[in-house]
Amino acid sequence: MGGDLGPRSVVPACIRFLQRFPLASLKLYGPAPQLQDLLREFHSTSVADRLEVVPCEQVVTQECNPVHALRRKRDSSMACALKAVADGEADAMVTSGNTGALLALSRSILGTIEGVRRPALGKSLPAEAGSCFLLDLGANIDCSAEDLVQFARMGVEAQRVHTGKRQLKVALLNIGAEPHKGTEEIRRAAELFESESSIDYFGFVEGHDIFTGVADVVVCDGLMGNVAMKSAEGVIRLMGQKAFTIERKNPFKRFFGQLAIKLLRKWRTQVEPARYNGASFLGVKGNVIKSHGGASSEAFYRAMITAKECAEADLAGRLSRALAP
Amino acid sequence: MGGDLGPRSVVPACIRFLQRFPLASLKLYGPAPQLQDLLREFHSTSVADRLEVVPCEQVVTQECNPVHALRRKRDSSMACALKAVADGEADAMVTSGNTGALLALSRSILGTIEGVRRPALGKSLPAEAGSCFLLDLGANIDCSAEDLVQFARMGVEAQRVHTGKRQLKVALLNIGAEPHKGTEEIRRAAELFESESSIDYFGFVEGHDIFTGVADVVVCDGLMGNVAMKSAEGVIRLMGQKAFTIERKNPFKRFFGQLAIKLLRKWRTQVEPARYNGASFLGVKGNVIKSHGGASSEAFYRAMITAKECAEADLAGRLSRALAP
Repeated sequence: MGGDLGPRSVVPACIRFLQRFPLASLKLYGPAPQLQDLLREFHSTSVADRLEVVPCEQVVTQECNPVHALRRKRDSSMACALKAVADGEADAMVTSGNTGALLALSRSILGTIEGVRRPALGKSLPAEAGSCFLLDLGANIDCSAEDLVQFARMGVEAQRVHTGKRQLKVALLNIGAEPHKGTEEIRRAAELFESESSIDYFGFVEGHDIFTGVADVVVCDGLMGNVAMKSAEGVIRLMGQKAFTIERKNPFKRFFGQLAIKLLRKWRTQVEPARYNGASFLGVKGNVIKSHGGASSEAFYRAMITAKECAEADLAGRLSRALAP
Repeated sequence: MGGDLGPRSVVPACIRFLQRFPLASLKLYGPAPQLQDLLREFHSTSVADRLEVVPCEQVVTQECNPVHALRRKRDSSMACALKAVADGEADAMVTSGNTGALLALSRSILGTIEGVRRPALGKSLPAEAGSCFLLDLGANIDCSAEDLVQFARMGVEAQRVHTGKRQLKVALLNIGAEPHKGTEEIRRAAELFESESSIDYFGFVEGHDIFTGVADVVVCDGLMGNVAMKSAEGVIRLMGQKAFTIERKNPFKRFFGQLAIKLLRKWRTQVEPARYNGASFLGVKGNVIKSHGGASSEAFYRAMITAKECAEADLAGRLSRALAP
């Protein structure tokens, strides 16, 4: 029920997902009449036997804060979908709803994996050489060096699932590569990373290095990670915007401009959030995938693919084993 | 002498600058033989009477840390150029050298403006509606709410110089727009911003809002600002990279691809660092402009334009008056 478009982006993505993956089945949580109407509108009959609508009247709004969600939204569509994961009725849960509420409800309903101090939100982002897993994206504001070590170990497991690679280099996000740069906590984390045998530590990297692929996993606190991801999204959107403005101004170039814009759109899909949609909430006992709030149907479908990868590889189980104390 | 290309990007930019602005004159600091050779190579004779080479043997390297720069690099080209500003022999100084050394030497040689606790590095970035001045970009790691208020006031003066606009909206960078988001210091800053009469406070914005232009000035600590700017740069570079890869793969599209790449390049210049090159170090007694370390000659020329704007508007003087206690 969340995100800018609500079930209007979710329902067509679900139908496409079921058509593409004949062994998959889905449960849709939300107000039944609204969802049934949309299912009819988008012609879901061919996949109806694998698509169950679970009626939930209560909905978590975008304005709802985490404390309110914990106290008053235990019967919301978001909470009910998480309960299905907790009860083993679902292998993964996907939502584009309120992030703060999702993190709070996930912790409360699924519980935290033993040994994990703080679950973290992470996501594969496009890079010149493949992809780069960035975490934390905003679940934790103040992070200790020890937290960052746990993030690194969780990020490695997640990126293994997404890429299939065994050997993954881990870097710390900082404002420079030199060892004296950054906060005391980041410098202390660097020492811990170096002594940690389960981490192949690369060193400090800067914001632009996320997208070069020098490291497979980049670790930072939620403030830096959130700013990095959203700034990158913002500038991509701006670039599309500028392109259209220039072409309208010059009628002579409009023809080639149209062709170029087509290609530009294609290129944008290589790097834009839609293609890399679906952040994983790592460290809770279940696979929870957060889709971008502004996700289109195409983007939500991508988040579902991410969820499928996590479920098939049993990412939550892997994390339990990897982080067991 | 700094930056990835050294004087090879600086010298042609200087010649172009002098040709474009007949009333300007420049001093070039560095090893005289090397600079003289380059001046000959790039045919500087037409502007030679306004271009003085000031010989400096010592150079600040990229590896030099700020403490070392303060102790051992007082005769470097960077220090000597700053002394020219301090002595009133130059109206502004531009470098693409070591940022940490520049900030330390600027503070020491020029001194801090009375009333300014911490000078900050800021820069105009492209936005859908014009531009957005972002600061701090990395001069200060831990910032108090009071520091952020000063950054805001300095950012407003700088953005006035760059845009000519009087009424400027100021926002605080955060991980969400809701009032409960962010660190305690960011939330405390929001209260101070609201009560400060000299600031037209907009509210919290997220990373992507830097590029929409909802605010004219966006304020944050140096860690967040640095990550925001560099992530944005990184993803733009990646997008160019991906474009070339796709076109090489499909020979049928190569022809239109070439045209599109030409346009893409043009669009990129609208948003890429080269066009918006030149960060101002605000709060020291003089105009100090930091060009991007990877600046091309074109980009360095842009940084010189930024310096010219700051010098003509007497930005350092404005800041002194605006921030006088």
